[in-house]
Amino acid sequence: MKVDGKPFRTIWRDPASGNVAIIDQTKLPHAFVIAELRSVEDAWRAIADMQVRGAPLIGIAAAYGLALAMRVDPSDANLVAAADYLATARPTAVNLAWALEDMRRVLAPLPPSQRVERGFARAGELADADVAVNEAMGVHGLAILRELAARKDGRLNILTHCNAGWLATVDWGTATAPLYKGHESGLDLHVFVDETRPRNQGAALTAWELLHHGVPHTLIADNAGGHLMQHGEIDVVIVGTDRTTASGDVCNKIGTYLKALAAHDNGVPFYVAAPSSSIDFATFDGADVPIEMRGEKEVTHLTGATAEGRIETVRLAPKGSPALNPAFDVTPARLVTGLITERGVVAATVDALARAFPERGKAAA
Amino acid sequence: MKVDGKPFRTIWRDPASGNVAIIDQTKLPHAFVIAELRSVEDAWRAIADMQVRGAPLIGIAAAYGLALAMRVDPSDANLVAAADYLATARPTAVNLAWALEDMRRVLAPLPPSQRVERGFARAGELADADVAVNEAMGVHGLAILRELAARKDGRLNILTHCNAGWLATVDWGTATAPLYKGHESGLDLHVFVDETRPRNQGAALTAWELLHHGVPHTLIADNAGGHLMQHGEIDVVIVGTDRTTASGDVCNKIGTYLKALAAHDNGVPFYVAAPSSSIDFATFDGADVPIEMRGEKEVTHLTGATAEGRIETVRLAPKGSPALNPAFDVTPARLVTGLITERGVVAATVDALARAFPERGKAAA
Repeated sequence: MKVDGKPFRTIWRDPASGNVAIIDQTKLPHAFVIAELRSVEDAWRAIADMQVRGAPLIGIAAAYGLALAMRVDPSDANLVAAADYLATARPTAVNLAWALEDMRRVLAPLPPSQRVERGFARAGELADADVAVNEAMGVHGLAILRELAARKDGRLNILTHCNAGWLATVDWGTATAPLYKGHESGLDLHVFVDETRPRNQGAALTAWELLHHGVPHTLIADNAGGHLMQHGEIDVVIVGTDRTTASGDVCNKIGTYLKALAAHDNGVPFYVAAPSSSIDFATFDGADVPIEMRGEKEVTHLTGATAEGRIETVRLAPKGSPALNPAFDVTPARLVTGLITERGVVAATVDALARAFPERGKAAA
Repeated sequence: MKVDGKPFRTIWRDPASGNVAIIDQTKLPHAFVIAELRSVEDAWRAIADMQVRGAPLIGIAAAYGLALAMRVDPSDANLVAAADYLATARPTAVNLAWALEDMRRVLAPLPPSQRVERGFARAGELADADVAVNEAMGVHGLAILRELAARKDGRLNILTHCNAGWLATVDWGTATAPLYKGHESGLDLHVFVDETRPRNQGAALTAWELLHHGVPHTLIADNAGGHLMQHGEIDVVIVGTDRTTASGDVCNKIGTYLKALAAHDNGVPFYVAAPSSSIDFATFDGADVPIEMRGEKEVTHLTGATAEGRIETVRLAPKGSPALNPAFDVTPARLVTGLITERGVVAATVDALARAFPERGKAAA
């Protein structure tokens, strides 16, 4: 997508230096900084420190990290060691393990002398594949937006939660792909962006990417979405997902469930952008998805920029009050209007998912 | 209630100085500061600058302000002028006009020489009446908590939103009165406190008052409540109300509606502490309650304390992203289990409210 008119991906190989470039997301929304990854250690740190975040992007960053490792030592021993090392950067990210496994499968049969070139090429192919999946979701999601727009006068209002944007992927994003497709095709649309406490990914990342690409949007507190739906201000909700079960239950950022309830109560369609890589055919019931508990400080403290541009962390809560910080919740399939996948829009049911991804259902069985 | 073992009200007359003392709520949760009101101008500023806030407390502060005005000039002219002046401090607060009207009605027939003493006495009576109403709600609410506690093993978990606490009243609070009554009677209870974005009254005020009174509590992001209810972690929700209609629709802090939906979806009882002064018998449908839109900066910026104790305001959102800030939402009566009033627990229906407050229904008709 674009940043003030100039096209960017979140990660790319710099043809001049041969190194890997990323948008340093820890600096957003207050500064737009490109960081350079020159070594596997740089890649590890970028993932661990969340300079890159979002499951798809983490996988690609690890793939590039392995290519950087090959540049120093392309031996069999280092292929194993570097992959094992990179896997420890964010141990729970499924895409990280998946991308590293793919890289090892491709590079292991090659003579060491070919591993650098093929490593960078393969990382680039994985990046392109991510872009293609997101763009396909964008096309399918756009059809939904067009149909909704045809039924109303004036601009179409979409609510999204957290950052399932291009910053979480290589490009396009998952939940945002239909929005960018719509905006580029001239659809009159406007996005309500949930702040997404406690980590504020909506305020810090989604608002930033929409602002700099030029998509009309408005930031709201997470508390406001229900009220806006009651007053007809939201035509459709589109969110991302961290894991969708075989029965269509959607595990996503904490607070998604509350918006799904409000959408259901007000007859607002609720769509989930779910690339097939995020569908877990081995888990049936959303209640079985383990929910990460994160640190209290994300709730009690907050980081932002002062009027002078200084980055400061401030405490909002009294010293001594404990906090609880579940990072995700599960939206039951009954509240989901449809799953936007790269193969089309699929109902959030066991049968529809199995029909859409027959090879996956079999693999899990 | 108590602050670290010592009993306090939010406002009182200091017997030594004859002036009025308040807890300066703009300093919470980072500092506990008692401010002195020596003049009607001090009282005006305390209300306008939100050193005192919460509808009941604003009314009492205005009443004391009028007594302070009488100390300088107890004439008929100044009684009118001072009341008119105080009414401008927060023009939309119903309790402000109501308390000033009461004071004028009581003081106007008296000779000016008696107006100072009677003014302070009357303000004290109004404060005591507020305490009595809240304490009565506490007794009725406690019966609900006792019944719920009898049906389960272990501690009772209550969720509350915003600050309907003793800091919003003279003492006890509305939604918190049952919690303090329960805690004092030895009931094993624990309170989940919604942060309550964007003004963070839960994190800044409710957590502070529970912490310093010694009530077990945990701060959570507003997004977390639905997830906790899905996992059986919340036994009952109790919130306050800014205005309840004759049909039982509840206008309260933005985000209340989302919690009511989640409570309904999970079979969790949802109670509203509604003193009769907050029931608007002249309005039937909650959709007719005008919703205040507040400034964008409350969403895009946030104030807290740095590690060094410096109070700083930081920006969370990118410069240039607009924000929308509806301050309240309306929870439909169908989602309300009951209204805890000073006369007992009343169903959120036209008939039940009219039966409980026959004199009010007639006045509105």
